[in-house]
Amino acid sequence: MSLTQKKLINDPLNVADELLDGLVDAYDGECVKVGRRSIVKKDIPDNKVALLVGGGSGHEPIYHGLVGRNLADGAACGDIFAAPTPDIVFEATQAVNKGNGVLYLYGNYAGDVMNFDIGAEDAEDEDIDVRTVLISDDVCSAPPTEKEKRRGIAGLVPIVKMAGAASQTATSLDELEAAAKKIVLQTRSVGVSMSPGSIPATGMPTFNIDEDKIGLGMGIHGEPGVGEIPMTTADELTPMMLDLIFKDFTEDPEVEALKPGDEVIFFVNSLGSTTMMECLICLKKAKQFLNERGVRIYDTMVGPLVTCQEMSGISFSITRLDDELKSYWNPACESICYSKMETITA
Amino acid sequence: MSLTQKKLINDPLNVADELLDGLVDAYDGECVKVGRRSIVKKDIPDNKVALLVGGGSGHEPIYHGLVGRNLADGAACGDIFAAPTPDIVFEATQAVNKGNGVLYLYGNYAGDVMNFDIGAEDAEDEDIDVRTVLISDDVCSAPPTEKEKRRGIAGLVPIVKMAGAASQTATSLDELEAAAKKIVLQTRSVGVSMSPGSIPATGMPTFNIDEDKIGLGMGIHGEPGVGEIPMTTADELTPMMLDLIFKDFTEDPEVEALKPGDEVIFFVNSLGSTTMMECLICLKKAKQFLNERGVRIYDTMVGPLVTCQEMSGISFSITRLDDELKSYWNPACESICYSKMETITA
Repeated sequence: MSLTQKKLINDPLNVADELLDGLVDAYDGECVKVGRRSIVKKDIPDNKVALLVGGGSGHEPIYHGLVGRNLADGAACGDIFAAPTPDIVFEATQAVNKGNGVLYLYGNYAGDVMNFDIGAEDAEDEDIDVRTVLISDDVCSAPPTEKEKRRGIAGLVPIVKMAGAASQTATSLDELEAAAKKIVLQTRSVGVSMSPGSIPATGMPTFNIDEDKIGLGMGIHGEPGVGEIPMTTADELTPMMLDLIFKDFTEDPEVEALKPGDEVIFFVNSLGSTTMMECLICLKKAKQFLNERGVRIYDTMVGPLVTCQEMSGISFSITRLDDELKSYWNPACESICYSKMETITA
Repeated sequence: MSLTQKKLINDPLNVADELLDGLVDAYDGECVKVGRRSIVKKDIPDNKVALLVGGGSGHEPIYHGLVGRNLADGAACGDIFAAPTPDIVFEATQAVNKGNGVLYLYGNYAGDVMNFDIGAEDAEDEDIDVRTVLISDDVCSAPPTEKEKRRGIAGLVPIVKMAGAASQTATSLDELEAAAKKIVLQTRSVGVSMSPGSIPATGMPTFNIDEDKIGLGMGIHGEPGVGEIPMTTADELTPMMLDLIFKDFTEDPEVEALKPGDEVIFFVNSLGSTTMMECLICLKKAKQFLNERGVRIYDTMVGPLVTCQEMSGISFSITRLDDELKSYWNPACESICYSKMETITA
């Protein structure tokens, strides 16, 4: 693979700020930039229980692209592959707070946790009630006995979609926190990568991998997963990845195993340069795998929503639904990252 | 650039069929596969004036991903980078026809025109009324005096979105044809590319370009545009591209020049591996350019919707709106390619 991708940027050290300005422009007035590097909805109703997301830039369209109608109220945006600083978290918190508390919902990375926690302390000093639910859907990043070490990857998109819907009707921060915890608990992902993205500031690859290898369980920044395997076909790889998700549902004492009759949201994410063609070919095999196990896909998401520049690779995410979670899935939503119409229910 | 991308596929000669199966799966029952390689909505109402799109595969999520709610009724899908054969066009036509005629809306490429025309003849033999509106938004592919030679590129997404909405209420094929012609007439695009995609069957690049060059006006398969220019920044390139669109609106006797007060749909498309980060940075500059000319963005689209595998590059598309076209833009729509909620109008 090439070490550098020809990129349409200006100052390589200023991309996080410029892309955020462009993102705000893309919202055509629905969102505004706040403070140093936050994006916030303009029309958050008084007393709404607010939902704040955030994380490093460079993974567009997440997280900042998940602010929108029936989605997040705001996002605190870090520099490229870096957590938002505490002052950014605090400025975003103040902007989304409408007097009924703010839920932080973001990926479980050490830098993010540290900075969001400091931001939360600053917010509490201003009498803003804050709770945190960490997204930790990557089953390859730690065993079920150490879930607190798990990273957040593409499962964040269905999680924020559903939490966003829950936040529209939640009457208290307790209620939204409980809903978000339940959604996170039922969401698991496994990712793979074939080649790195490049760091905008340097043009260097985000990691190295042999031409004939796939990183199984690799994180979205190139973090090690469960090991490297020989490059293979969509039909060979897909069941390996889904087996890991099924195994995790089975081994985690906090949830039931996936079983016939279960209904799920199934998400095939591209990490960047992996084409929609490949995602769909993997989806075909995945649907067959799920059918054989009696697990029904309630709705499907597919596309490059959680990326790491032009990294190649995919991930599968499964969220098991019950009636409550369906009620969060069904409503329409709209953002730069993900939009849907209201689900037609029989 | 590397000549090969590590791709998650099975048989390289069977990708078009496998991705279509995966696409049908992604629709969770809303669409079905018909005949050899068509995808069609399951619930097309009797007497609906039908909208059929189509083209070569390999550019996912278009065209086949544009079948959906308030969008196209069906798509005739070719092999990779190849027009659908006449029998595929005919099978799709029969499947979408509900007795009130079928509008063909697709990109102006010689192979597609030939095959859709033969399909139309077969359909007329079965007493199915067919009309054709060609999408030819690429202003760099021929001068305004030879618009019949222009290629269809990313402008097809807002065009199909609006034609899909128009088809929900059209009472005759004449009415839908007139609406589609009007939408196409007001839509112009300019694309650029920095590096090729790869052909799935061979792994070879779709074209060659020097490391330090950008193909200005290059087509989505690597067709020549207005020339190669040195690699440059987002802020330098964006006005050059928009100038070409503005110039074309000015020089084409069929339309008025873009002027202060005009409202437009503005679409920044990625051709594949160009990141959302880059699209947003270009969007920031584009918004400034349009603001300075008094042209108002009514709504923004951004993302990799018209791709050529992992090709890098972007395009800008502008559709000028009037009240009629706004009425086609405003409704919600949903498909694998593009979804939106109903536009909130003041």
